[in-house]
Amino acid sequence: MWSRRTVMVSAAASLALSNAAFAAPASVERWGVYEIALKGPQTGNPFDEVTLSAVFVSGARRVVVPGFYDGEGVYRVRFSPPETGGWSWATQSNIRALSGQTGRFEATAPTGQNHGPVRVTKDGYHFAYADGTPFRQIGTTCYAWAQQSDAKCAETLTTLSTSPFNKLRMCIFPNVTAESIDPFVRTGSGDRDWDAKRFDPAFFRRYEDRIRRLGALGIEADIILFHPYNKARGFSNMSRADDERYIRYVSARFSAYRNVWWAMGNEYDGIKTKVMDDWDHLFQVLQAADPHDRLRSIHNINVYYDHRKPWITHASFQNGSAVLDDARAQPYRNFAQKAVIFDEVCYEGNSVKRWGNLTGEQLVMRFWWGTIAGTYVGHSEAYSEPGRTDGSWLGQGGKLIGTSPPRLAFLKTILDTAPTPGIEPIETWYDKHMGGKPFEYYLRYFGAAEPTEWVFELPGRKDDPKNTYRVDIIDTWNMTITPVEGVFTMDIKDAYSFHDPKRPVVTLPGKKWIALRITRVTGKDGVWTNPDLD
Amino acid sequence: MWSRRTVMVSAAASLALSNAAFAAPASVERWGVYEIALKGPQTGNPFDEVTLSAVFVSGARRVVVPGFYDGEGVYRVRFSPPETGGWSWATQSNIRALSGQTGRFEATAPTGQNHGPVRVTKDGYHFAYADGTPFRQIGTTCYAWAQQSDAKCAETLTTLSTSPFNKLRMCIFPNVTAESIDPFVRTGSGDRDWDAKRFDPAFFRRYEDRIRRLGALGIEADIILFHPYNKARGFSNMSRADDERYIRYVSARFSAYRNVWWAMGNEYDGIKTKVMDDWDHLFQVLQAADPHDRLRSIHNINVYYDHRKPWITHASFQNGSAVLDDARAQPYRNFAQKAVIFDEVCYEGNSVKRWGNLTGEQLVMRFWWGTIAGTYVGHSEAYSEPGRTDGSWLGQGGKLIGTSPPRLAFLKTILDTAPTPGIEPIETWYDKHMGGKPFEYYLRYFGAAEPTEWVFELPGRKDDPKNTYRVDIIDTWNMTITPVEGVFTMDIKDAYSFHDPKRPVVTLPGKKWIALRITRVTGKDGVWTNPDLD
Repeated sequence: MWSRRTVMVSAAASLALSNAAFAAPASVERWGVYEIALKGPQTGNPFDEVTLSAVFVSGARRVVVPGFYDGEGVYRVRFSPPETGGWSWATQSNIRALSGQTGRFEATAPTGQNHGPVRVTKDGYHFAYADGTPFRQIGTTCYAWAQQSDAKCAETLTTLSTSPFNKLRMCIFPNVTAESIDPFVRTGSGDRDWDAKRFDPAFFRRYEDRIRRLGALGIEADIILFHPYNKARGFSNMSRADDERYIRYVSARFSAYRNVWWAMGNEYDGIKTKVMDDWDHLFQVLQAADPHDRLRSIHNINVYYDHRKPWITHASFQNGSAVLDDARAQPYRNFAQKAVIFDEVCYEGNSVKRWGNLTGEQLVMRFWWGTIAGTYVGHSEAYSEPGRTDGSWLGQGGKLIGTSPPRLAFLKTILDTAPTPGIEPIETWYDKHMGGKPFEYYLRYFGAAEPTEWVFELPGRKDDPKNTYRVDIIDTWNMTITPVEGVFTMDIKDAYSFHDPKRPVVTLPGKKWIALRITRVTGKDGVWTNPDLD
Repeated sequence: MWSRRTVMVSAAASLALSNAAFAAPASVERWGVYEIALKGPQTGNPFDEVTLSAVFVSGARRVVVPGFYDGEGVYRVRFSPPETGGWSWATQSNIRALSGQTGRFEATAPTGQNHGPVRVTKDGYHFAYADGTPFRQIGTTCYAWAQQSDAKCAETLTTLSTSPFNKLRMCIFPNVTAESIDPFVRTGSGDRDWDAKRFDPAFFRRYEDRIRRLGALGIEADIILFHPYNKARGFSNMSRADDERYIRYVSARFSAYRNVWWAMGNEYDGIKTKVMDDWDHLFQVLQAADPHDRLRSIHNINVYYDHRKPWITHASFQNGSAVLDDARAQPYRNFAQKAVIFDEVCYEGNSVKRWGNLTGEQLVMRFWWGTIAGTYVGHSEAYSEPGRTDGSWLGQGGKLIGTSPPRLAFLKTILDTAPTPGIEPIETWYDKHMGGKPFEYYLRYFGAAEPTEWVFELPGRKDDPKNTYRVDIIDTWNMTITPVEGVFTMDIKDAYSFHDPKRPVVTLPGKKWIALRITRVTGKDGVWTNPDLD
């Protein structure tokens, strides 16, 4: 359950609350959102002129958390406690009324589906929640869903509630037709009539409501800070000082939500008013501003950002053909030396644009190739139906009408029982088209080929464990799993591979979109159990 | 001609030579080697204790060139003048006899095949000589050819003289059986009995003779400074101070030769005594030590070095499958943002090792895929013949017995008339399998496919030039070029492509290893001429 949204409580109800802090809860779950609300000045430009932070202390742990102005004289500090136990806090500000306020609260054990924020795993190439629960990324994109009407947003959330998607890329600055509300206060009716120094709290309250609702569905909100679209408004073409204020504001408001990820840019290299030094600088601003250290990435059109830079937690890529083959995808891990998500690989749809006219089969195939390459892939769809404006799930959300989502849900069920921390690529130099965990678990994928048999070889050197395996034939499109009768007892075939000399071949159905799941027989019943999940 | 090797002349013959400098020529070609020889102390350890450099000045240009000790009391400074004109010089040393020597000489215009050193082109992805002549890299590897007997080396040079190869990767530390001579002075008969602080000048004189002979053949010497082989001797496992001395010595001796490239490591990540910080440091040492700023790269086994680092001039990769498809190869340019050479892609041969058992066809195919991806590829061969020790061209040089070299020579003739600075990849996102120069010149490659026709489409948007093209069918294996009758006059086909509506298809021979060359008709005679080469 995602019920730990911030609750405004009266001072009397709090465990210990100084007078000026008019609201703060007495307890919150670990990884939940603890919020302090304070009354302060409304004069001048509080967004620009008031500094506020709170220091949170629990034992030896000390976290400085920036606050933000929420309009109408209300200031807030949001903190997501990384550990259970008692926490105390004290505020600092250049405004006397906001400074020196103190309080304390209890961070309680998480309940329900609260597994904490998603982090990159220790090996560097996969993801898991803070409590260790694996996170198998099946992403989608709805750029401006959050800026649509409440009714449309509700429809999107209903769609997501039965979808496989556990991460959603979404813009702060709308890129398609959206409700008439902006992140910045308007100063007139022209496109450029807005004040970069004044945020509109109503916009952000609404946006963070969407973040929370995604969280309640177990979906990570991959928040896009800048993009090259909507040039008329020019939100991504601000000065460096305005960009910095914006990043700090957004971080102070959103970073306490544990399902927040940061995408610094979408097609960042399409923004012609910023150069590489700007991006590097803004990442450093974000990293310094975010006490919760949420995941950070950046998405390209043509020029790959250098994902080895230290502020990048995982690599996000757009490439239209990288996941058409596991041997194309795998080297991206070598380059980034980090977890890789192909967030954009062309979309399912009927767009006249070739980036948006994949069939469901083509998109599902890309997920499978990416998966066995040890990487992650993103979905969206760009179907234009009569009567739809901005055309698609990609722009505004709403309903999914494509054929890929059920197959991606099926892939997710396969991954749910796969090894942790994730599928590792296997010998892509030699076109094995296989990922998994050596000598335990393999996925072999055939894509659009229609083989009627497969010579069953596993990579292995003479001293490696030979083992006995079961094989399942997976129809990734029709979503069936058909066990192959019996087992395969492996022995040395040559210097590089093992096979079962009595049974060297697996018969296949001669259809497209087939995968094999090869699992080590570990128990008497011949059923492999994931030792990592025991 | 490569006749500008250093000639020792008497002081009387020089234009102006101070007394202690017993030899220095009166003139040298631009990009040739100007060498000063000086007499100095033989006591102590001159390699470690004597500092020597010379400042070369021509107009506003000033270059500080480190010298080196060549044994028997002889010290040398080697300088390759980057510009024609009068140059003067003066030495600096911590030894009075070597310090304050002066002289001058004339750098004359280059003659014959002296095109200067190879540099990365301004666009960043290709190579050209300093005088602008294109350099189309067709590399090979003979790790320890230079350490073989003079007779064997002569055989290798004879082989190279009729080969297509214009770059050769070669180790300083031998990795296979070699003549019994080491870069360091031996202190006993054991593997580890050598003194890292004392170089053996005879070894280096011999090695630089090989560099010069390669230069005379127009072949770049890609010199490998460290590698993980020959662990018994442990030359690649020295201390940082010893590594630094070695790099400075090698640079002072070799960098004046204009055909020198630096490969900091071969399978660098196989050297377990060095970590990334060591490699970064050694590159910085090399960059500071080399006044000629020769090309610098590093070659991996599994862990890709971050080629965006500023001291890397071009990216060198080993990958066994990257050039099995242009869409696999092209992203390496995106990552490195520099010219890419796949120096090792498995070798032609009959090795039991799978890295050395490609057929000629398979290796030639890799060159073509790499070429149309806008990258460069390297050859070697690992054939074991009866009676050969260390088996192969790869280890010791000698004769080439594989079938790929003539086909690589054929590829080179194709590239000789291709656009400059080089072939650019075209729409790899959409599997066009095409490289060239848009609206001028295209190479379309089919690899192992055996199509009987090709739907002739060129990428283009409505406002792009339509143009008229001729087509040649290239059999890359049988080395034939067959012009297709007539021309193709292009018009819009759809939002992304052009075709000739009267002639939408090219008939193909239904064989493997076919490429098409599509050239814009520019003259009345219908023959495309490379405007870059005019």
